[in-house]
Amino acid sequence: MRIGFGVDFHQLVEGRDLWIGGIKIPHTKGALGHSDADVLLHAICDAMLGAACLGDIGVHFPDTSQDFKNIDSKILLKKSYDLITAEGYTVVNIDASLCLEAPKIKPYVAQMQATIAGILNLTVKDVSIKATTTEKMGFVGRAEGLVAYATILLKNI
Amino acid sequence: MRIGFGVDFHQLVEGRDLWIGGIKIPHTKGALGHSDADVLLHAICDAMLGAACLGDIGVHFPDTSQDFKNIDSKILLKKSYDLITAEGYTVVNIDASLCLEAPKIKPYVAQMQATIAGILNLTVKDVSIKATTTEKMGFVGRAEGLVAYATILLKNI
Amino acid sequence: MRIGFGVDFHQLVEGRDLWIGGIKIPHTKGALGHSDADVLLHAICDAMLGAACLGDIGVHFPDTSQDFKNIDSKILLKKSYDLITAEGYTVVNIDASLCLEAPKIKPYVAQMQATIAGILNLTVKDVSIKATTTEKMGFVGRAEGLVAYATILLKNI
Ligand SMILES: [Zn+2]
Ligand SMILES: [Zn+2]
Ligand SMILES: [Zn+2]
Repeated sequence: MRIGFGVDFHQLVEGRDLWIGGIKIPHTKGALGHSDADVLLHAICDAMLGAACLGDIGVHFPDTSQDFKNIDSKILLKKSYDLITAEGYTVVNIDASLCLEAPKIKPYVAQMQATIAGILNLTVKDVSIKATTTEKMGFVGRAEGLVAYATILLKNI
Repeated sequence: MRIGFGVDFHQLVEGRDLWIGGIKIPHTKGALGHSDADVLLHAICDAMLGAACLGDIGVHFPDTSQDFKNIDSKILLKKSYDLITAEGYTVVNIDASLCLEAPKIKPYVAQMQATIAGILNLTVKDVSIKATTTEKMGFVGRAEGLVAYATILLKNI
Repeated sequence: MRIGFGVDFHQLVEGRDLWIGGIKIPHTKGALGHSDADVLLHAICDAMLGAACLGDIGVHFPDTSQDFKNIDSKILLKKSYDLITAEGYTVVNIDASLCLEAPKIKPYVAQMQATIAGILNLTVKDVSIKATTTEKMGFVGRAEGLVAYATILLKNI
């Protein structure tokens, strides 16, 4: 068994779509980034890669590459998964936390779980997604950005 | 085995009691929240619920419900524990980190450990509580708020 | 098996060396602290101590002690390791994330891994070090400071 941890940050700006956990969420702002800026999938990618000691998302999918411009992060999640399975790892479970002031993501959690579980060959009970505000504090509290943390357990098969 | 992670935030304001880890700590400010705003117990609840994929503290104990107004978070911890035990899980260990500028919590750590271990049927050696400042940076560094992170391992019995 | 988590913060200021992961990194600023202020090694120390429930880095290496003034944090890492091995623990793997705006740490990651693995009797594949910016947000985004998170799995032998 091996542990992994990922954290990711994106600014929230007008004129962008808001992708979280592979789902497009209606909102007045979206996340800024080179890819679709899916903060949750990026944190999970980093946790997976970290647990398998395969570098980080910036190593594999550099934001200086045109290959990843506006890319759907579900593709990055699949590529990260392929990298860890090639090393003989499988996912035991994921527990992630989103920090954002708005919108409420609860209505979308089940869809996110199903999307991620589908890509990682897991059941939805192995993909936990939680959310919290930062109680109006900091850049998350001012709705300038959002943060995701993800922890993962892998096992070697 | 399953991994869980929780993070919680509360503002520090005058005129409120400061509850951390189930203990009331003498201080000039207290944590603002719907419940007793115990940032450490909330992070642990979220880590437990997350590891068992049972949603988050906001799902089970919504801050819009009068049932949880000013509630002692030890009750929420016990309820979260009952939820995971109903799923067949027991706690292996918890490691938590508090980020706050003041007061020093070291004198209270042993009491916090005993309180949490008592509720979760653990020994105090299974409940680690650490603390750090943020070196004067950010909202924690300006003593406007505090943050707790908790990680947990569960096993299925 | 036991889980551990550590988080550490340091200001970035002119006139100090920048030590990260046991390596001195050329940069216009360095990390401020009582010791060499190695944010990554401190987070790993805290994760190790936390997983073994041995208190935190502030308990063992207080910043009020002259013994630890400007100390090389590799010594603190070795001391922390000795403390957990005395309890019968060995490290399974470490996954850490650095949050900093600059400089790019990728060229130094392999050296950091080798340094840490050497101290902890691990292979470099058991010491994952990742890095991210905070997308210009907060004190990290303003290059006022840096943060490290570390997660660890220990096993009892
Ligand atoms: Zn990202
Ligand atoms: Zn709370
Ligand atoms: Zn430090």
